Amino acid sequence: MSDYQYPVNDILFSLLSIADINKLSPYLEEPVDQELLEAILGEAGKLSEQVIAPINASGDSEGSRVENGEVIEAKGFKEAFKAYTDGGWVGLSGDPEYGGQGLPSFIATAVNEGVQSANLAFSLCPLLSHGAIEAISHHASDELKSQYLPKMLSGEWAGTMNLTEPSAGSDLAAIACKAIPDGDAYRIKGQKIYITWGDHQMSDNIIHLVLARLPDAPEGVKGISLFLAPKFLLDDAGEPSQRNDVQVVSVEHKLGIHASPTCVMSFGENEGALGYLVGEKHQGLKAMFTMMNNARQGVGLQGLAIAERAYQQALAYAKERKQGMKADRSGKAAIIEHPDVLRMLMTMKSQIDAMRSLVYVAAVENDLSHIADGEVKQKAVARTALYTPIVKGWITEQAQEITSLAIQVHGGMGFIEETGVAQHARDARILPIYEGTNGIQAIDLIGRKLYADKGAAMQDLLAEMGADLDQWKADNFNAPLEKLENALEQAKQATDFCLAAMQKDSTLGTGSAYAYMMLMGYVVGAWLQIKALAASQQDAQMGNQQKQSWCQSVVFYCDHILPRASAFYQAIESGHESVEVLNETSFAR
Amino acid sequence: MSDYQYPVNDILFSLLSIADINKLSPYLEEPVDQELLEAILGEAGKLSEQVIAPINASGDSEGSRVENGEVIEAKGFKEAFKAYTDGGWVGLSGDPEYGGQGLPSFIATAVNEGVQSANLAFSLCPLLSHGAIEAISHHASDELKSQYLPKMLSGEWAGTMNLTEPSAGSDLAAIACKAIPDGDAYRIKGQKIYITWGDHQMSDNIIHLVLARLPDAPEGVKGISLFLAPKFLLDDAGEPSQRNDVQVVSVEHKLGIHASPTCVMSFGENEGALGYLVGEKHQGLKAMFTMMNNARQGVGLQGLAIAERAYQQALAYAKERKQGMKADRSGKAAIIEHPDVLRMLMTMKSQIDAMRSLVYVAAVENDLSHIADGEVKQKAVARTALYTPIVKGWITEQAQEITSLAIQVHGGMGFIEETGVAQHARDARILPIYEGTNGIQAIDLIGRKLYADKGAAMQDLLAEMGADLDQWKADNFNAPLEKLENALEQAKQATDFCLAAMQKDSTLGTGSAYAYMMLMGYVVGAWLQIKALAASQQDAQMGNQQKQSWCQSVVFYCDHILPRASAFYQAIESGHESVEVLNETSFAR
Repeated sequence: MSDYQYPVNDILFSLLSIADINKLSPYLEEPVDQELLEAILGEAGKLSEQVIAPINASGDSEGSRVENGEVIEAKGFKEAFKAYTDGGWVGLSGDPEYGGQGLPSFIATAVNEGVQSANLAFSLCPLLSHGAIEAISHHASDELKSQYLPKMLSGEWAGTMNLTEPSAGSDLAAIACKAIPDGDAYRIKGQKIYITWGDHQMSDNIIHLVLARLPDAPEGVKGISLFLAPKFLLDDAGEPSQRNDVQVVSVEHKLGIHASPTCVMSFGENEGALGYLVGEKHQGLKAMFTMMNNARQGVGLQGLAIAERAYQQALAYAKERKQGMKADRSGKAAIIEHPDVLRMLMTMKSQIDAMRSLVYVAAVENDLSHIADGEVKQKAVARTALYTPIVKGWITEQAQEITSLAIQVHGGMGFIEETGVAQHARDARILPIYEGTNGIQAIDLIGRKLYADKGAAMQDLLAEMGADLDQWKADNFNAPLEKLENALEQAKQATDFCLAAMQKDSTLGTGSAYAYMMLMGYVVGAWLQIKALAASQQDAQMGNQQKQSWCQSVVFYCDHILPRASAFYQAIESGHESVEVLNETSFAR
Repeated sequence: MSDYQYPVNDILFSLLSIADINKLSPYLEEPVDQELLEAILGEAGKLSEQVIAPINASGDSEGSRVENGEVIEAKGFKEAFKAYTDGGWVGLSGDPEYGGQGLPSFIATAVNEGVQSANLAFSLCPLLSHGAIEAISHHASDELKSQYLPKMLSGEWAGTMNLTEPSAGSDLAAIACKAIPDGDAYRIKGQKIYITWGDHQMSDNIIHLVLARLPDAPEGVKGISLFLAPKFLLDDAGEPSQRNDVQVVSVEHKLGIHASPTCVMSFGENEGALGYLVGEKHQGLKAMFTMMNNARQGVGLQGLAIAERAYQQALAYAKERKQGMKADRSGKAAIIEHPDVLRMLMTMKSQIDAMRSLVYVAAVENDLSHIADGEVKQKAVARTALYTPIVKGWITEQAQEITSLAIQVHGGMGFIEETGVAQHARDARILPIYEGTNGIQAIDLIGRKLYADKGAAMQDLLAEMGADLDQWKADNFNAPLEKLENALEQAKQATDFCLAAMQKDSTLGTGSAYAYMMLMGYVVGAWLQIKALAASQQDAQMGNQQKQSWCQSVVFYCDHILPRASAFYQAIESGHESVEVLNETSFAR
């Protein structure tokens, strides 16, 4: 177990100085000023540190269990959830018409960083509820909205997303769950798996959103509809009453996020679970896709959050643990005095700095894509679409390395579960898998994002990075500009290469997709690091030590981390053929 | 759970065609011929596949526990251990004078690959026993040898190594455990932690080797002595009788290798544990160091073994799991048909191929260093010393990536513990930590191995690689020679750079040590891959499909994996200063 400190200064710096939240101001009724932001994040920090973090390790040990057909969550979670909902955090960015606070969602992102660092398993319940709220807000009828949204935004009712089936994981076209018309409603029958927080005792009702097929549905993804099926049906007063025909069958025994019940759900074992259509018939997948940027960026945020938590624990241990002698032999050294430990800690920190910049830049762009108009909106939509797979894919890959390094810094203690640092690595391991595997993120980047607009959005991003670089050079700015320039050149060439490959054969490019995603992550990270360095030097509020810390992080990143971009570039440049020739026989012995 | 298949063909190919076991022949009474090797490995394969692999997942679930001061190991382990000892596997490379079979130890390495792939937790018991046997063989008096070695080589008695204490992990100078003279023997008092298989019910006695300090010992590493303290003291007939004053206090709750009891051991809570000096007084650490190459290469082998097991499981799943459509839309595709899955599988396979070559090349060199004489011995000693940290450090790092990729190939199923693939990643996570952390391996490489002889042994290795390259170029051999040439050039420059850095300040180089170790691993891997390609093409017994498989593995490795060497090169070339400037304040916020 370890203490967690919400890094409010770094988050504010990312939002104010790198992501430039001011560009949202023209579209907000009330611009978000620094004072308000600090007040909100201050409270979020306290909640995360004092209420949610302390039940992280205990939740991991205890997990959840099924008793009499109900999921019983780990001790203390119900109380923490109540504190979370009482604080009004669920409705932070929700529609004021239904009781939300209508704040831009980048603020929720900043709040969620703390909640996720504190306790990833816990954070998934409000996260999935938020997804359900969004789906209902954007696609449900006014009647459904007024029935469900107020209680969901207050946190009295939680929500879930029911997509996956045993034969339909990455391939949602294979969904087999059925929805049979019954008056104005439908009867849903089928099994869903991997349903996060599919059942629990923390809220008065659970609102399940379910993908299923109508009897007349076309095959494949164009025949999937979205339904709302509450755990308890509502009575005439709109209060939860009779139990709907949906049951939790079991909870999975997982590598990590033990306190988050991952449920097998059975819909319609008897008369069929009563469900209400959300949005148009057969348009369920489209409804899901409108939330996908938010959800996928949310998983990228989880990667940042768990990496941050692991880093804090490693840093604290490295300052405290004594082993070996000081360089001048004057006494025992704390292990942070050894160069290889410093290397590990800065490998963690410098990447976390880059990841955080990217998370908040993408979050603000995402807000802009929703609230702006005209050309600004159009550009923000394209940029958000481009950032999303990088945020999800690149950051969650980094989280694997960083949580593993946190174990390594602990030496043998890291392997002992009671130390608590191994939990972060176990928890983090789901991130490259769920909400679209990172392979799918990479294919999304190279296909739907890069190739679909013939590279326009990517060229725009590359041009922006190039323009910044030119400006820094013109300013004689003392930063590793040459390294960025080389990496940017490789990013451009890789982009051209991938476009040409996709042009030739749309499956040819997919063998290079992962390398391209990682390359772009490292290059965008370097750009934002140098942006952060520039901003830090001009920051009047920042102390000298913090400025030096930023400078060391940026230089280290460009020296030690950015060179990986060139390795991925080489793999793209010369390596697509060595993937193209592979098939099952390649693995013969 | 999954089946395991001992990759006997690949192991034979590595030994016969890459590691060139024939160079041992002049020094062996009976040269090891292919027939004998095949017979031994065939039996080892059966034992691993049929007896040891089936209790891997159950051992992970059950773990071990302390009951009435005794460790109770997981079900089935005692029977498997009996099968292992009955098969005569413990004494394979042991001294014939005490009942061993006197075979070169590379054969034991090949046998151990199977045992470790089958069940890493199980394999640690014979492995630690082997370490104890070696220490006794090399350093104990003839009396101790004849009392203990026969029963240890037969497997009736197991052995352990007791080094670590709470304040003495990487820093053995801090060892505080005491040994007080008592007649011809000593009374040992103190606590040891992280003692692998420190207690169990699988053998009639357990022979603990313990590092402790005599009352007149100088401070630091020069005051540590090695003692033998059996669990049961021997009676006049040499049979276990009275209990010695050594107790297991508890077993750790760990991230992985659950079935391997990691014990806290208490020596001398009452009258003091009776112990016998092994080797000279105050020379205990030196005695440990003579076994270090074997032990560290053994952990590298574990990295190969667990990576192989994880790869086999991922490959089997990728062939079986259907998701998405075939490229020609003619039906459901197995996921192995998707390019990104092929990329992941070949990332695993191509690295495993390189890792296996290196493991057996180093193992044969290690044998040569023990049995050869004159200049051949001298060269083999230096080369073995050089290979060892690369085998331990680089391979165990690769094992993290490969076991994680195996989870990724499984998608959501990979995160479910019952699938069994997550266990491999959990088990593998100890490997970069124990037997000297990988940071310590890197410092060992750059300090004791590279700098201590002013680069002579490394120059010798670089020259051998260069000569092979020249020969292949002269032969117009169709292989990625240019890529190897570039990487080799970077390895040379990095070597010069590291030597210069160490010359300037012996702590300056340590910031680049990890990058140098990884760079050398990737380059040596590429050299051995191309060597394997050349050998496979000339192999009359190998089928065309296998030849093609080798070719694809080598080309993929050079295209996709080897470029990482250049990233590490860049980090060394420009990055030492960005480590040098770091200290605790660098992490200020």
